[in-house]
Amino acid sequence: MIKQDMKNKMVIARQKVEKAIEKDNGTTLMSTGMTGDDARLAKAAVAGGAKILEANHPAVTLARGLEGVSTMGDAEYVRHELPLKSMLECVRGVRAVVGPDIYLTVGFPGSFTEREPIPLTSEDFRQLALAGADGVHCHKSSLADLKDVVILAHENGLLVDSYIGKKSDLHQFGIGAEDITEVKKVALAMQEIGADFIGMMTGMSYEGVAAGEIPQEIKDRLQALIETVSVPTFAEGGINEVNVKAFKNTGVNVVTVGTAMDDYAEGAIKSAVAKFINHQ
Amino acid sequence: MIKQDMKNKMVIARQKVEKAIEKDNGTTLMSTGMTGDDARLAKAAVAGGAKILEANHPAVTLARGLEGVSTMGDAEYVRHELPLKSMLECVRGVRAVVGPDIYLTVGFPGSFTEREPIPLTSEDFRQLALAGADGVHCHKSSLADLKDVVILAHENGLLVDSYIGKKSDLHQFGIGAEDITEVKKVALAMQEIGADFIGMMTGMSYEGVAAGEIPQEIKDRLQALIETVSVPTFAEGGINEVNVKAFKNTGVNVVTVGTAMDDYAEGAIKSAVAKFINHQ
Repeated sequence: MIKQDMKNKMVIARQKVEKAIEKDNGTTLMSTGMTGDDARLAKAAVAGGAKILEANHPAVTLARGLEGVSTMGDAEYVRHELPLKSMLECVRGVRAVVGPDIYLTVGFPGSFTEREPIPLTSEDFRQLALAGADGVHCHKSSLADLKDVVILAHENGLLVDSYIGKKSDLHQFGIGAEDITEVKKVALAMQEIGADFIGMMTGMSYEGVAAGEIPQEIKDRLQALIETVSVPTFAEGGINEVNVKAFKNTGVNVVTVGTAMDDYAEGAIKSAVAKFINHQ
Repeated sequence: MIKQDMKNKMVIARQKVEKAIEKDNGTTLMSTGMTGDDARLAKAAVAGGAKILEANHPAVTLARGLEGVSTMGDAEYVRHELPLKSMLECVRGVRAVVGPDIYLTVGFPGSFTEREPIPLTSEDFRQLALAGADGVHCHKSSLADLKDVVILAHENGLLVDSYIGKKSDLHQFGIGAEDITEVKKVALAMQEIGADFIGMMTGMSYEGVAAGEIPQEIKDRLQALIETVSVPTFAEGGINEVNVKAFKNTGVNVVTVGTAMDDYAEGAIKSAVAKFINHQ
């Protein structure tokens, strides 16, 4: 049974996302990577206009240099070792700096499809809610797992953003749906389970696609998702400054950008350091 | 008594700094701010050519959004509350990602002039050394305090970079020396105590100074320091892309850049977010 306090918290959280979508004319940004876990860069993202932030454990694994890993690919093998308290610390810090009006969702060991099983308890979700999270960023890859996450999240007043992928994807970040028919079927099932936001993993091959464009398959899959569900829709993967307009044209409500954000900050630092050293 | 193992560790650490200075033709960079504590950005700084990194507790206070502070000025009031283990975690992560050849110095609660007294123990220094630090970034503001830090650092194989400031500075980041005579006297005393690197706080007013130039007073103070000591010299404060050449021309061995680094990363994020949101 979900208590009234928790229901109220979820109503407020849902309004944050709805207002952000409205304010940004139908498509808003979910800023992640460094901007989700480092309070300095979260503040910068919000100053730039971000209203939705996502902290996640692979990014924090890289921030903390856990076991020396320095790529997202390598982080997949160790991210489940990150203690939940590292994520709580990030959430608390980002929330303290960006204030109450920003929607903050959190990926943490066990909310993704992990290399090693991580048991989730209601207390974990309670701690995240108390730290300041509005939602759980869920990359589970089965409906049964998603259901477990939704129940624990809602018990503690947290919303859930969850994703559709393909079983053939190298990394499993969503519930598999190979074709359009399956996308519609899976999306409906996710909505029925109670997923508050449903996203499409869009980090497929962009080979042979013109600059500023996105592959037809991604357009079709996004279209199928958007037509099928009544909850706000997300796109995640492969979104950059050049193709974001094409993503917006699909009508998706939220574009998630992480790697591109990190690339901007890292590129700025790398070139600044080179200038300071080589300035003769 | 300093054990041979500790002496060896210090010899290797000193060589890292000397080689960096030599490689960069007399003046190298110490990169700090985000690049000292976040393994993702430390990696980017090293990719740009940085060979010396500095992690410090005010920066980590901002990264973790401790008590919601988001400016260096506000961080001064809470930075002493940061647990040493947060600094150990940063040092361990940065070291794991950048490898053994980078010189890594660390500011931590008690190594600066703090608002609340922080007792330092040899065990604190030992933990920092074990985490991967080469040195201690010391902003104590008395010779007696510097001596305590040097003894504890050397006992544990850590070098010390320490600074000269002015008693009239708003924030006390160095041992006070009002004029050139005092700069020479204080610098010699610091060297005698065993400070391995001696720096000048150069974050004074740049008002009325032409772009690319630095005030005559800073030049004179740096000159006095450089002439007086035989250890490598540092400059910290007010150094940016435009005036770095003027700093190099003074002959100082290491320019420390933190705020400018953070500004590059934050600026890149802020403008990227704005582009993603406003791209029509």
